[in-house]
Amino acid sequence: MSPYNLAALLSPTSLAVIGGSDAPGSVGQVVVENLVSGGFTGPIYLVNPRPLSIAGTRWKATIAELPEAPELAVVAVPAAAVPQVIADLGAAGVKIAVILSAGLTQANGLREAMLQAARPSGLRIIGPNGLGFLAPHAGLNASFARGAPQPGGLALISQSGALVSGLIDWATTRQLGFSGVVSVGDMAEVDLGDLIDLFAADPHTDAILLYIEGVTNPAKFMSAARAAARVKPVIALKAGRSAASGKAVRSHTGALAGAYDVHACAFERAGIVQVETLTDLFDAAAALRAGQALAGDRLSIVTNGGGAGILALDAMASAGGDLAELGTETLTRLEAVLPAGWSHGNPVDLVGDASAERYRLALDIILSDPGVDAVLVMNCPTALSKPGDIAQGVAASVVAARGQGIVKPVIGCWLGDANQDAAGPILSAAGIPMFGAPDAAARAFGHLLAVRRAKAGLMTAPAGHDPRADGRTVALALIQAARSEGRTLLNEVEAKTLLSAYGVATVPTRLAAGIEDIAALCAELAPPYAVKIVSPQIVHKSDVGGVVLDLATAEAAITAATEMRARIAKILPEATITGFAVGTMIPPGRAHELIVGLSQDATFGPVLMVGAGGKAVEVLRDRALGLPPLDSERARAMISKTRISRLLAGYRDEPPADIEGVVGVVEALSAIAVDLPDVVELDINPLRVDADSVLALDARVVITQEPSPPSGLVIQPALREQRAQSISDPAAEEAAPHPACRA
Amino acid sequence: MSPYNLAALLSPTSLAVIGGSDAPGSVGQVVVENLVSGGFTGPIYLVNPRPLSIAGTRWKATIAELPEAPELAVVAVPAAAVPQVIADLGAAGVKIAVILSAGLTQANGLREAMLQAARPSGLRIIGPNGLGFLAPHAGLNASFARGAPQPGGLALISQSGALVSGLIDWATTRQLGFSGVVSVGDMAEVDLGDLIDLFAADPHTDAILLYIEGVTNPAKFMSAARAAARVKPVIALKAGRSAASGKAVRSHTGALAGAYDVHACAFERAGIVQVETLTDLFDAAAALRAGQALAGDRLSIVTNGGGAGILALDAMASAGGDLAELGTETLTRLEAVLPAGWSHGNPVDLVGDASAERYRLALDIILSDPGVDAVLVMNCPTALSKPGDIAQGVAASVVAARGQGIVKPVIGCWLGDANQDAAGPILSAAGIPMFGAPDAAARAFGHLLAVRRAKAGLMTAPAGHDPRADGRTVALALIQAARSEGRTLLNEVEAKTLLSAYGVATVPTRLAAGIEDIAALCAELAPPYAVKIVSPQIVHKSDVGGVVLDLATAEAAITAATEMRARIAKILPEATITGFAVGTMIPPGRAHELIVGLSQDATFGPVLMVGAGGKAVEVLRDRALGLPPLDSERARAMISKTRISRLLAGYRDEPPADIEGVVGVVEALSAIAVDLPDVVELDINPLRVDADSVLALDARVVITQEPSPPSGLVIQPALREQRAQSISDPAAEEAAPHPACRA
Repeated sequence: MSPYNLAALLSPTSLAVIGGSDAPGSVGQVVVENLVSGGFTGPIYLVNPRPLSIAGTRWKATIAELPEAPELAVVAVPAAAVPQVIADLGAAGVKIAVILSAGLTQANGLREAMLQAARPSGLRIIGPNGLGFLAPHAGLNASFARGAPQPGGLALISQSGALVSGLIDWATTRQLGFSGVVSVGDMAEVDLGDLIDLFAADPHTDAILLYIEGVTNPAKFMSAARAAARVKPVIALKAGRSAASGKAVRSHTGALAGAYDVHACAFERAGIVQVETLTDLFDAAAALRAGQALAGDRLSIVTNGGGAGILALDAMASAGGDLAELGTETLTRLEAVLPAGWSHGNPVDLVGDASAERYRLALDIILSDPGVDAVLVMNCPTALSKPGDIAQGVAASVVAARGQGIVKPVIGCWLGDANQDAAGPILSAAGIPMFGAPDAAARAFGHLLAVRRAKAGLMTAPAGHDPRADGRTVALALIQAARSEGRTLLNEVEAKTLLSAYGVATVPTRLAAGIEDIAALCAELAPPYAVKIVSPQIVHKSDVGGVVLDLATAEAAITAATEMRARIAKILPEATITGFAVGTMIPPGRAHELIVGLSQDATFGPVLMVGAGGKAVEVLRDRALGLPPLDSERARAMISKTRISRLLAGYRDEPPADIEGVVGVVEALSAIAVDLPDVVELDINPLRVDADSVLALDARVVITQEPSPPSGLVIQPALREQRAQSISDPAAEEAAPHPACRA
Repeated sequence: MSPYNLAALLSPTSLAVIGGSDAPGSVGQVVVENLVSGGFTGPIYLVNPRPLSIAGTRWKATIAELPEAPELAVVAVPAAAVPQVIADLGAAGVKIAVILSAGLTQANGLREAMLQAARPSGLRIIGPNGLGFLAPHAGLNASFARGAPQPGGLALISQSGALVSGLIDWATTRQLGFSGVVSVGDMAEVDLGDLIDLFAADPHTDAILLYIEGVTNPAKFMSAARAAARVKPVIALKAGRSAASGKAVRSHTGALAGAYDVHACAFERAGIVQVETLTDLFDAAAALRAGQALAGDRLSIVTNGGGAGILALDAMASAGGDLAELGTETLTRLEAVLPAGWSHGNPVDLVGDASAERYRLALDIILSDPGVDAVLVMNCPTALSKPGDIAQGVAASVVAARGQGIVKPVIGCWLGDANQDAAGPILSAAGIPMFGAPDAAARAFGHLLAVRRAKAGLMTAPAGHDPRADGRTVALALIQAARSEGRTLLNEVEAKTLLSAYGVATVPTRLAAGIEDIAALCAELAPPYAVKIVSPQIVHKSDVGGVVLDLATAEAAITAATEMRARIAKILPEATITGFAVGTMIPPGRAHELIVGLSQDATFGPVLMVGAGGKAVEVLRDRALGLPPLDSERARAMISKTRISRLLAGYRDEPPADIEGVVGVVEALSAIAVDLPDVVELDINPLRVDADSVLALDARVVITQEPSPPSGLVIQPALREQRAQSISDPAAEEAAPHPACRA
C-alpha cells in the first residue's frame, strides 16, 4: 500500500493520543494538556486501558474501539509497545503517527519492528524520540514542549527537541508566529526532505527554518530543498562545525573536504541559506517575519546617533550589501525637513534631538528614492524623546509607503531594552523586525541578501550531465586492470591516461618497470626529466623522497632512480616498487600550481574541489568545494571562491591565467564523478596553469575494490528541476511525484 | 598653574549647574532633574541670572555669589557664553567643568577661547558637546542621559553620547552597575588617556569599557591603557572599521596597513581587549561583571540538551579555548549521580529531564575538577522542570564552591526569553552572567580568555630600544644626499646601502648611470643579472616593465636596459631616468618571498609590517602589523600571525625556513623606525627566505622633505613601564607623574 501524504498533519479533523495519561508531570499528561489547551476544535480521543476522564477528550480503551479513524495519532507508550500500536493504528486507518516514545533502537530491533508494522497500511511515522508536533493555525499542539506558539508564517523543523522549546519561547516574546513546528526525533521514517516538501506547499508558511545534525536521505533532501527554496526562504543551522571528520582518506582532496563544508556546499546548491549560530537563526527568522523580499542590495541607514550609524556601516562591511547613494532629489527634499547639522548623505544622521515627526518625514522621502532597496532605522534613547513615539512615526511612514505601493524591507534597531520594549509592539504590528544592536541589524539585512542570492542561484539553468562514452570505456578498462591486480590505487601513468581520456592535458609520462628501461624511455621524451616512484603502497610520493625533478640527461635520471630505490627500500622496506614514472619535467616558471580533485562525502557522495596546489596544499588550505554535476558557470563560481583565484585573475604586469582551462578540468572531473562511481578519490596536483594552458603534472586515483552502482545523487538533475518547476506552479502541485516514491 | 587632578570627579562634595533651567525638555532642565533624582547628598547650586526654585537645589544669580567652590560644575549655557563661564569658574576655585554645550568649534574660535580661559586656574574640562558624566557610587548623574544606572563595577568612556543612553538602558535590565559613565564629547581637554588613568586607580571600577572613534593623544592613551590593563580588564570597541584609509602612500606597507588595523595592533600592545561589535561589548561587559579571572583555557560544558551542547562546541571553535578533559575521578563521581543516558564526557549532557538537583550535583563535581578552569551551564526549557528551580540549583552549587575556595568563572546560557526572565535574577545574584544563545555564551568565554591573554602579554619584559649609532650615521648621510637633490625617494642602491648599515643582508647591486656603464658593472658581479630602472618618479617598477630578470650575459643586460628605457620613455615620458640598478639575480628556487616594511600611521606613527611578498603582495593581503620598538619575541609573534608563516615552518619534506633571519630583519626595521624618524615608508620586497638565509632582493625607502623631530611615541618605553609599575602598586600611585604633564 502506498504511503499516505503528510498534508493531513497540518489540518487533521480528529486526533488520538495512545498512552495519554493524567499522571502529573508524565509525558502522556503534558501532551494531553497541551492538546486540550491548544484550542483544537475536532474530537480528541484518549486510548488507554485504564479509564480516563479529562475535560475536552473522549476516552477509549483500545484503538479498535475508536468510532472513526483520526488522521493523526500521538503515541506516548513504552518503547516495547510501539510496534503493536503502530500495527493497530494502521489497521484502523490512521494516516500519521507522532511517536514521542524513546528507546526504539536498531540495536534492540524495535525500530525495525515499528517500521515493519507501518508498512502494510502506509502509515507515516514522525519520530520516535521527538518532542512532538505543533500546527498553530489548526490549534494543534501535539507535543510536550513548554509554551504555546502563536500562529504565523515560520515553519521550524528541528533535529533537537530541546532547542524547539527554546525557539518557541524566544519567538513568543517577539510576536513571531509559526505555521508548524516539528521535532523530528530519530527520523526513522519521515525525514527532513518530507517535511520541507510539506511546508513548501503549505500556504501558511512564509519561511522554513531547519536545525540539522545530519541528513539521512540526501537525494530527497536536496530535491525538496531546491523546490522549496524557489518559492520561500529556507534557512538552516547545521550543528557539528567543530566535529573532526575522522574519515580515513588517501587524497589531499579527501583531507580538505570536511563534512561540515560539504554540507555547506550542498546547502548552497539547494538554495538553502546557511547560518552559523543560533543567534543568526533567531535573527534570520525575525528578519523574514514580514515576508518582504529585497529587490536589490542598496541599504539606506537612518539614525539619531552618528556613532550608531558608523557601527552599522562597520557591520555591513561583513554582512554584505551596498550603501545606497541617495538621489539629488532625495537630498534636496531631506535638506528641507532636517536641521542644519544633519549628515547630508547616507547614513542619514537626523541629529540627537530627532523627533518622531522628523523620523517620519525623512523616512517618507528615503523610501520613495528608487535607488534605495531597504532601510535600516536606528534609534538611540535620549531624554528628549519617547521611544514609542519614534516607533509610531516610523511605522506610520512605512504603512503609508506600502499604501502607495512602495514595499521595501525596513529593519529597526532600537538600542537599550526599555527602548525596545516601548517600540517593539508598534514596529511588530507594522511588520518591521527590530534588533538591539547595529551588528545584529546589519546581519539581519545580510540574511535578506542571502535569501535573494540563494533564490537567484536556483534560477540558472540546471547543470547538465555530459556523458563521455569514449573516456568511460578507456577508464573502465584501466580500473578493471588495476582491480585484477588487487590494486585500488592507479599508478601515475594509469591515472594520467584516465585523465587524458576525459580531455585533461597531462605531461607525457611513461612507466619504466625497472631501471634498465629508463634510458629507452628518455630517448622518447624531451629533457629535462622528472622521475617518480610507482608503488601501490605510496600515495604521497614527496613525503618519502619519491620525486626527483630537473634531471638533464638519461644518465642523471638513472642515477636518481637508483638512489630513490635505495632510499625507499630503507625507510619503507614493505613497499612493493612497481617501477618509475619517467616524464618530461615542466619547469615551474611563472606558472601557478593548483589542485583539482574529487572525493566522497559520507552523506552527499562525490565532491569536487579546486584550490591552491603543490606540495603545501594541506598547509595552505585554500580550496572551494562543489557538487557534481556542475556546468562551466558553477565551476567558474567555485574557482572564484579560492584565494588563489585573485592571482589567477592577473595583477600588475602579470597576465591573467587560463581560468577557462581550469574550468574545463573541473568539468572533466565532474563528468568522471558521474560516469565512474568506482573512482572514489582523485587528485590532480599540481595542475600547472599559466596564461595559455593547463597541464596535469601529477595525478593519483583511488578506486573501489568492487564495482559500484551509479550514484543516485548525481544522475537526476533533470528530474529534480522538473519537480522544482511543478512546486513553484501551484496548478502542477498535485501531479508532482510523492517524495517517498523518489530515490 | 598646574592642572587639577580628576579624582574629585568621582566623589565631589558639592556641585554647581551653570545654565540650569526649569524649561521642560531643555538640556538645562533634564540635567538638573537627573542631578536631583540621582541621590547626590551634597549641595547642588543652580547659577542662573533668573531666579529658580527647584527642590533639592540652591539658586545663585552668578558664579561669584557661590558660598563655596564646588569641585564640579556642569555647564549648559549657549556656546558663546562658555569661555566667560570657564574663566569665572576657574577664578572661583572650581576644579572640573563638564560642558554639555555644543557649538564650540575650532572654526568659530570658541574652543580655543574656552581652553585659554581655563589655563590660568588649571580647571579641567570634560566635553564640550557631550552627554555628561555619571558617578553612581556618589549618586551623581550630571548628564542628560535617559535612565539612571545602578552603582557597580563597570566604567564606560564613550566618544558617542547616543550610545551611552543605550548602554545604560541595556545594563539596567541586566542588573549591571557602573562606577562611572563619561560621554567625552569633543575631548577638547580631558581625553581618553586621562579617564583611563582615573578609572584604573578607582577602587570601585572592576573593568573599563571604551567606545572609541579616534584617539587624540596616542602616547598618553597607550601609556594609560597599558597601566590600567595590568590591574583590570580594558575592553574597547573601535568604530570606523569600514572607513577607507584615504591616505596617499607610496609603499606596499602603507597600502596594506589600514588605520583600523593599526588601532587593533596598538590596542593589543597596550593590553586592551578589542571587540568588533556593540553586541560583543555588551557581552564582554556582562561576562566581566563578576570580576572573576580565568586561571586557564579549559572549559567544561553542562547542558540538558545535546544539540545546545554541540552548538556551544561549534561556537567555541571560533571563540577560542580548550574543551576540558574531565578527570577519571570526576567521571566516576558523575556516573554515580547521573542517569544512564548521560554523555559520559565533556560536554556533560544531563539528559532532557534534568532536575535542579541533578544540575547542582553535577556542577559540584565538575567545579571541583582541577582540570576545569571555567564552566558553561546551559538550560533548554522543558515542560518537565521550572527554569527558576534549575537556576537555584546552579547558583547553590557555585556559591558552595566559592565557600570552599573554588572560584572559577561560571557562564549561564538559558535558551528562551521566559526561561531567561525566570533564571536571570537568581544567577545574577550569584554573580553568574547569563546569555540567551550558545554562540553568545561561547563568545563571552572568549572575552574572558582574551582578558587573560592581554594581561599575560603585558607581563613580558618591555621592548628595549637598541640604538645603532653606526647605521644611523650612514643612513643620515644617504638621506641628506637624497634631500639635497630634492628627492624623497631613495634609489634602490641607496635603499640597500641603508639596510646593509642596519645589518640586513642585501643582494649586491650597483648603479649604472647610463647604459654605457653596464658592461663594467657586470664584470664585477656574478651572472645571471637583474636590471631595474632607477627613477625618482617610479616607485613600483614592475608596473611599468622596469624590471628584467635572468639575464645571462652583460650583452643581454645591455639589451634589456636599452629596451626598458625605450618602453618607459613611451609610457611615462615625464619620468627622469637616473640610471639602472644592476645586480646579481638570485633565482627564486625553493625560497619564500616575503615583504617586511615600515609605514606611518596618522595616529600612532611608525608601524611595522611583515607578510607574503613578491609582486602579488597587494593581491595576497597576507600581513601582520606591529608597533616599534619590538623585541625578538614580539617580532616572532607578529610573523606567526601571517598565513605564510605556516609555510615557513616547513612541511612534508620541506625544511623550516630561516625564521630567525626574518625576526632579525623585523628588528632592524624597528631600530630604523626609532633611529630615523625621517624614514616614513620602507618596503623590503621581496625578502628572499630559504632554509639558511634571508636576503633583501629589492627595497624602496621614502623620506620626509624636511628633517623630523624624534617620534614621541616610540622612544619612551622605559618611562611607560615605570608608570605601569607605579599604577599597579597603589603605594606608588601618588608619585606617578600626572597624565597631563606627559608627552
